[in-house]
Amino acid sequence: MAARRQRALDVAAAAGAEAVVVAGPPLVTWLTGFAPDIETGASVFQLSAFAVLAPGAAPVLVVSEDEAGDAAQTGCEVAAYPGFGIEPIDPVGHAAAALMEAVDGRRAAIDAGSFPAALARQIDWVDAGEALVAAKAVKDPDEIERIRAAIAVCDAGQAAARATAMPGMTELELWAHVRAAMERAAGARIPVLADCVSGARTCDVGGPPSTRTMQEGDLVLIDLVPRVAGYWGDSCSTFALGEQPAKVREAHALARETLEEVKAGIRPGVTARDLDAVARARLEFPHHTGHGLGTAWHEEPRLVPGSPTVLEEGMIVAVEPGTYDVGLRVEHVVLVTADGCETLSRHDVSL
Amino acid sequence: MAARRQRALDVAAAAGAEAVVVAGPPLVTWLTGFAPDIETGASVFQLSAFAVLAPGAAPVLVVSEDEAGDAAQTGCEVAAYPGFGIEPIDPVGHAAAALMEAVDGRRAAIDAGSFPAALARQIDWVDAGEALVAAKAVKDPDEIERIRAAIAVCDAGQAAARATAMPGMTELELWAHVRAAMERAAGARIPVLADCVSGARTCDVGGPPSTRTMQEGDLVLIDLVPRVAGYWGDSCSTFALGEQPAKVREAHALARETLEEVKAGIRPGVTARDLDAVARARLEFPHHTGHGLGTAWHEEPRLVPGSPTVLEEGMIVAVEPGTYDVGLRVEHVVLVTADGCETLSRHDVSL
Repeated sequence: MAARRQRALDVAAAAGAEAVVVAGPPLVTWLTGFAPDIETGASVFQLSAFAVLAPGAAPVLVVSEDEAGDAAQTGCEVAAYPGFGIEPIDPVGHAAAALMEAVDGRRAAIDAGSFPAALARQIDWVDAGEALVAAKAVKDPDEIERIRAAIAVCDAGQAAARATAMPGMTELELWAHVRAAMERAAGARIPVLADCVSGARTCDVGGPPSTRTMQEGDLVLIDLVPRVAGYWGDSCSTFALGEQPAKVREAHALARETLEEVKAGIRPGVTARDLDAVARARLEFPHHTGHGLGTAWHEEPRLVPGSPTVLEEGMIVAVEPGTYDVGLRVEHVVLVTADGCETLSRHDVSL
Repeated sequence: MAARRQRALDVAAAAGAEAVVVAGPPLVTWLTGFAPDIETGASVFQLSAFAVLAPGAAPVLVVSEDEAGDAAQTGCEVAAYPGFGIEPIDPVGHAAAALMEAVDGRRAAIDAGSFPAALARQIDWVDAGEALVAAKAVKDPDEIERIRAAIAVCDAGQAAARATAMPGMTELELWAHVRAAMERAAGARIPVLADCVSGARTCDVGGPPSTRTMQEGDLVLIDLVPRVAGYWGDSCSTFALGEQPAKVREAHALARETLEEVKAGIRPGVTARDLDAVARARLEFPHHTGHGLGTAWHEEPRLVPGSPTVLEEGMIVAVEPGTYDVGLRVEHVVLVTADGCETLSRHDVSL
């Protein structure tokens, strides 16, 4: 973790600052290993956990008391204020005091698109949110291991989807089986971003599971994005319930070929826009060709038209070409290696 | 919704401001009806949706394009910036421009513990977060109906827990059944805050489901807090897998009596501290006796020692006494009526 903390301090230095202060959960996890609960949104009685990083010391995590136990396991220094207890509470006041003590008069580079105004006004700050997000695109070895673990959970979910889906079952019932399989694989309740759509709904790119009953002849599009120990995996496949016409079989084969074609082009030195162009020359679709992932489910590099981002060893790229007149998408996640890429995904992407 | 928008503008006026600007999801939902996705946390490529409310107009919702469809269904004016697409993105720049246009030079009361610093610096603001949260304690009639609907989903989950739990099943397996039952009742995927613990784990007050296998003689503590169409329900029960010793039966009976005793005291004019004292005179526990809920899962009134909050008609109160040397808790949600309260919860709280 020392490597990425140094990269964050380098971003701060480039912005004329001596400390890094972040509140967005992806950046907090990146710098500390602490993965705050996210599944139920914000409490009105506490602030987002935030981290203060200054040269030569472990970060200080400022959290509600309810998060203090998990925060302490990271090895960071923890400053906790009263949370789900019975005392009077003043989260802004307590957090501001902890912030000022940890920052200690330094100028701070913050993620100002997330960091709360009530705290920022207590310190001298400059916005470095975009540069900090860019700095996390290249992964440290321990991050790659965590992403592998998250992708193994994707694989379990994708396998369960294929084993379970059948005509007569609703999308919501399928979703319950898939999520249960992922949580069994993870050994814990986990956050999951997901598309789970069938039939004509697959032409909408994605969406949450609905009460729609799947039918013989349907396509089923499953995109599974779980967070395991703070790091996200990603995966998509589209499979058929029953025989498909030639048009669908050909479109699916073309999407798989496009996926392999993009992956074959991934190596250090290529630009994101060139990889995007490989996919867009073969298929028409309204979204990115791919994206990075790590402590955020979408991050750099974005494979989109015009992106000048140059791929580097240690980046993670999810590649996900699709075509939505038919309604299908396939996705693999790869690790950029010294001379190409390694496919981390193991799930079936056949029709 | 006009009533609560006026209460928010009254809070602003009391703070010397002419507009309300909020980014915390509970306040955004309260003022607009828009319930942003929360289950997977923040994207690094978009900001939290925020709302700008000025006198004489519907609020303006500033959202990523990915949220624009749902936002438009609220009847609010929507300002959307590029999101999950293929264009270059600049969420802070786009959102700041939309903010300045909507605020139009007014002084704004903001929820500064949530509102991002990068946006707040564009406007003249005063922090009114605590007062805005307090203003949402009394519910409008449409809010009460939504809370009833969320509690019906709690009831379905609690019934499923009792019907499903058995020795030999893991907590995670039970959780999968319970969540599936709640999503079936809601007809959609929904965020759920939950405790799902068994055996000795019930003495820890709560926690997420684990890989622990339930055993004959266990207590099972299930606390279910789903968000349905933007409003949270709440519920807790503790039931037994098999015969229990007298000590446990008596403790459970005392908790149920305490719940009924607190509910019997709820009416307009009583203070939160007095209701808290009713429970704490009978049982010892480390958390609040109860709390409000609505667009947040915990809000005012907090039933805690020393709280001077006076109950009013239209408040919602979850009452949840417990005792953790045995490891149990029971909870009902009530609506404060003109002369007492109405219990909204219908789930079984027997042992």
